[in-house]
Amino acid sequence: MKKINITFSLNLTEKVYSTSLIVKLNGVLMGLLPPAYAEYLHYQSVNPYSLHVFNSKGNFIWEINLLDKQAAEIIGDILLDESFTEFIIESLNDARCIILEKKVEKLSEKDLADIFYRSEPVNRFALNFHSPTSFKQQGAHVFYPDLRLVFQSLMMKYNALMEDDNDINHDFLDEIVSSINITSYDLNSHYFTIHKAKIPAFRGKLFFTVRANNTVTNYIHVLLKFAEYSGVGVKTSLGMGNVSVIER
Amino acid sequence: MKKINITFSLNLTEKVYSTSLIVKLNGVLMGLLPPAYAEYLHYQSVNPYSLHVFNSKGNFIWEINLLDKQAAEIIGDILLDESFTEFIIESLNDARCIILEKKVEKLSEKDLADIFYRSEPVNRFALNFHSPTSFKQQGAHVFYPDLRLVFQSLMMKYNALMEDDNDINHDFLDEIVSSINITSYDLNSHYFTIHKAKIPAFRGKLFFTVRANNTVTNYIHVLLKFAEYSGVGVKTSLGMGNVSVIER
Repeated sequence: MKKINITFSLNLTEKVYSTSLIVKLNGVLMGLLPPAYAEYLHYQSVNPYSLHVFNSKGNFIWEINLLDKQAAEIIGDILLDESFTEFIIESLNDARCIILEKKVEKLSEKDLADIFYRSEPVNRFALNFHSPTSFKQQGAHVFYPDLRLVFQSLMMKYNALMEDDNDINHDFLDEIVSSINITSYDLNSHYFTIHKAKIPAFRGKLFFTVRANNTVTNYIHVLLKFAEYSGVGVKTSLGMGNVSVIER
Repeated sequence: MKKINITFSLNLTEKVYSTSLIVKLNGVLMGLLPPAYAEYLHYQSVNPYSLHVFNSKGNFIWEINLLDKQAAEIIGDILLDESFTEFIIESLNDARCIILEKKVEKLSEKDLADIFYRSEPVNRFALNFHSPTSFKQQGAHVFYPDLRLVFQSLMMKYNALMEDDNDINHDFLDEIVSSINITSYDLNSHYFTIHKAKIPAFRGKLFFTVRANNTVTNYIHVLLKFAEYSGVGVKTSLGMGNVSVIER
């Protein structure tokens, strides 16, 4: 998996919200891809990429996470090509974005295996929801971090992308959920606007400890590490559900 | 019901947290009462008073809510007596508190009946949890505003204090919970220390709308109005669960 951070400058007369900008950046990305691959992505139930954008010192940083080999190759090659030095956001009055810096981080299957086989597991975590996050349950949006929905989402993304398996083990999910104890939190709701739809969502921090055997504890750690690339919940390809994890 | 707000000055060399101060103020209050009544209060499952303290312009405001006739008479008479102009907090190095102002608000059964029979119910509310709030469920503390626990707590307090009934109608509670739709929130956890015990709790704001018939909607409004006096959840006599309601 690859995390590409593209720093770019964007001169605008009006303020643009990052939740609005990221939807437009997804449009830019689709325009850069070979049409057949963009079409293919459109029909995936679990997207092999996730996006996020945030302000940094007057510029923007566009985070593109590439979650499988094909995405890492096709999308990674295009974005990291030396000739890719600027882009236009047509849906934002043809705003011209100058790329100032590109950074790449990698997370390999070996990195995840190293976590999974740790003999001294980490069992205290802080999960930071940077962008609006939401889950879908029985047709409705759930906009608080219900632990079952958080880990169900991560297991589904992990199994689909890493193991090509569209099922999850619900007994194992039960075991994960019952082993986690939330110790503190700071959360608030934020509506995320996609075109004209408003999706109820939340941002904030969740602190928790895990009380389980090494296998379960390490597996939770693997899922959380994976989450920094995949995001969690719905619409991660449109900038929702971006998270980071602090091991404590 | 009476809400008495006593503004007092307190000169201290050290900073004192309001969550620590309120436990000491409860001790002061018990010391002012006739011993037999203090003893009686000690054994009530639903206390007929709730407390809160907060900073205001360099002074403190001590809020004492008196929830039944007896409490309003016994406690109200003592606190509102003209000779009650200062008090000592023994557990705080004998700190001397000078009373600067006393204010009284009342909420009568007629006020609540007027709400209950409104033909145009209010159905948008903001519930503001000012002091750390917590619920007890199956022996454990729940430190987020689960709607069932919020309204179960209010119905239990209301029935015990207003109707001398220690039961609640669970079908009606179900109807209340299913008619409420949370629209936004801003909540964070706060541990409340009582002596050496740390109770997990939360503070913050919850916004919601009610979709129900007039009877249910008005009853919810009555419970919320009552909540401004009773508080919600556990240890309201020690300053937890203080709330205010905004009708929107």
